[in-house]
Amino acid sequence: MKKFETNILIVAASEQDANLYYATHFIAPDAFVFIQIGGKKHLLMSDLELDRARAQASVDDVHSTSKLAAEYRKKYDQRPSYTDLICEFLKKHRVRSLRVPANFPIEFLDPLRKHGFKIDFKPDPFFEERTVKSREEIAAVTRSLRFTEQAVAQAIEVIRKSVIKKGKLYDRGEKLTSERIKKIINVSLMENGCVAEHSIVACGIQGVDPHNQGSGPLYANQSIIMDIFPRHSESRYYADLTRTVVRGKASPKLKKMFAAVLEGHKIAYRGIRHGADGSQIHRAIQKRFEELGFSTGVIGGRVQGFFHGTGHGLGLDIHEPPRISLGKDILKAGQIVTVEPGLYYEDAGGIRIEDDVVVTKTGCVNLTRLPKVLEL
Amino acid sequence: MKKFETNILIVAASEQDANLYYATHFIAPDAFVFIQIGGKKHLLMSDLELDRARAQASVDDVHSTSKLAAEYRKKYDQRPSYTDLICEFLKKHRVRSLRVPANFPIEFLDPLRKHGFKIDFKPDPFFEERTVKSREEIAAVTRSLRFTEQAVAQAIEVIRKSVIKKGKLYDRGEKLTSERIKKIINVSLMENGCVAEHSIVACGIQGVDPHNQGSGPLYANQSIIMDIFPRHSESRYYADLTRTVVRGKASPKLKKMFAAVLEGHKIAYRGIRHGADGSQIHRAIQKRFEELGFSTGVIGGRVQGFFHGTGHGLGLDIHEPPRISLGKDILKAGQIVTVEPGLYYEDAGGIRIEDDVVVTKTGCVNLTRLPKVLEL
Repeated sequence: MKKFETNILIVAASEQDANLYYATHFIAPDAFVFIQIGGKKHLLMSDLELDRARAQASVDDVHSTSKLAAEYRKKYDQRPSYTDLICEFLKKHRVRSLRVPANFPIEFLDPLRKHGFKIDFKPDPFFEERTVKSREEIAAVTRSLRFTEQAVAQAIEVIRKSVIKKGKLYDRGEKLTSERIKKIINVSLMENGCVAEHSIVACGIQGVDPHNQGSGPLYANQSIIMDIFPRHSESRYYADLTRTVVRGKASPKLKKMFAAVLEGHKIAYRGIRHGADGSQIHRAIQKRFEELGFSTGVIGGRVQGFFHGTGHGLGLDIHEPPRISLGKDILKAGQIVTVEPGLYYEDAGGIRIEDDVVVTKTGCVNLTRLPKVLEL
Repeated sequence: MKKFETNILIVAASEQDANLYYATHFIAPDAFVFIQIGGKKHLLMSDLELDRARAQASVDDVHSTSKLAAEYRKKYDQRPSYTDLICEFLKKHRVRSLRVPANFPIEFLDPLRKHGFKIDFKPDPFFEERTVKSREEIAAVTRSLRFTEQAVAQAIEVIRKSVIKKGKLYDRGEKLTSERIKKIINVSLMENGCVAEHSIVACGIQGVDPHNQGSGPLYANQSIIMDIFPRHSESRYYADLTRTVVRGKASPKLKKMFAAVLEGHKIAYRGIRHGADGSQIHRAIQKRFEELGFSTGVIGGRVQGFFHGTGHGLGLDIHEPPRISLGKDILKAGQIVTVEPGLYYEDAGGIRIEDDVVVTKTGCVNLTRLPKVLEL
């Protein structure tokens, strides 16, 4: 089985496929072919990307698909499909069996199998080592995080300085909206080379649905959840940060929820270490929330309480293994995970606080610096 | 075969999968299940997205995966995998065969086939109707394009007003770089709700590689290619625009290349109409370039000339069917395609000009308004 394990095939656009980018350190918008045979890395590249791939990709060999196609035409007297080129290359290198990632597409899988190749997939993480970050990778996430903190700090200052009129927030005479705050955050990030999409700025009842991105006016005395997760355009690494604030006075229930979520953070920081099981950390936080009177389940036809995971791996993808949630998942030193417990009730609003931490042998190091303050 | 054709399965994150977004009009960062049975659309959704999906998705039914899981546990006395839930749902609806898109992943394909389901894929375009745009879709692309033109116009003004010192461009005393121009463009786009990634601002020899994003100082009397292709965050529709400028004087060869590329545009506009074959338009431009003395091929070990396609479909993906390139592809009224001939020579630089046009019954309508001017 050794040989089978070392032959790898990926066909994807590295811009959308973190495994392929990790294997090649080459960003391209269109699909290309990565083949690893006995530890040697090959790319099959169109003329359009050939020069750039040879200059930038961390692989052993970059082959021109147009040259391979010309050889094929000479040999078989017919025009090859993309799959034909892959088959021919594999045959030439006496490869019969391949391992592919979980997202390997049927359009190449079925034709390759018809040609007799034995193909099996490895569930995520495809490259185990991708979950454990190098010093450079930790620095890249930290850099994205600093820009995110800077952007969120700007937004918090605008909310803090806003004027309250009839329960709504105003900034220099204009109604302050989710859209306005998102723009402040996203433009600040773009100025630092980070691309934020689907940034969440959700006020009051909107924040009770954790994936509602938020829209319309921001209100005084209600929770405003800001969940921002940009990728740095150059490094390709993400950060993920959430803060919840209230302009004015938070209700007693919101304050208790905020304190409970901060307790959740402490439980996570105590529990996270090399060898710890993420599900135990998650369950400890669930249990503590129940003890504090914050139960989870369907209330009035709607799921309320703490109904998402405590955290997830972070890196070239915004959501990577490991998970700190209901399923068993053993943490490893060097992994970067989010810690983001939250509580959501229709009669109070939503609270979510999220930091990014590195798992170490004996605990964890919090990469996040932005303070956690509820009332502004 | 009718029945087979109407049963559709997609498992993907709609944020990354345009077919799934097209089918559901629901954006989610994590994978979910879309099943179409006899024209009726179903979603299987986690609790986290359930409320939002019910409010926003254009489907007939949204099913809770946690409810389905509870039913499964009751029936079989064991915890179901994600695949088990899909299988159980399909069995309940007496579905045995399914059509999936070309990118359907092996991690669901192999287990479903093991359960006896007959699964075949349809090559792109999966939804034929996706290539033909509605009035609303054309308006969405046009809106993204207007913001792109505004951003590129800003960049052109900065380049026009720049000061030339020892062959380099300066803006208010600072060296003007690719990075600076990209930031001006990307921030302007972000202010209008558009996300631009991998924007190209490539000067001189850098522009000879069409996918080189460009870096470092901008030079006078050299071609500066700006290729910008943002997506609007809300509508999800892309625009794609390229302009090439020279601050100062263009060389005679660059001027001739620019004129040839503009001739290429005219050939495209004359040829594009409902029923036209894209490959004939592409070949006509190739031929004209040859006649004008601009040949394509390997020169000094490097591919030079016109070595990419003339255009591609544009919509929810930046690259969609149809193609205007070497392969036969019949255009249809309502499709939006780019027209982007280019010429690249090491001894002169690169010229690429790109507009977005709508195919009509009798010709095409150019959506693009930004003028094409070489020398600034």
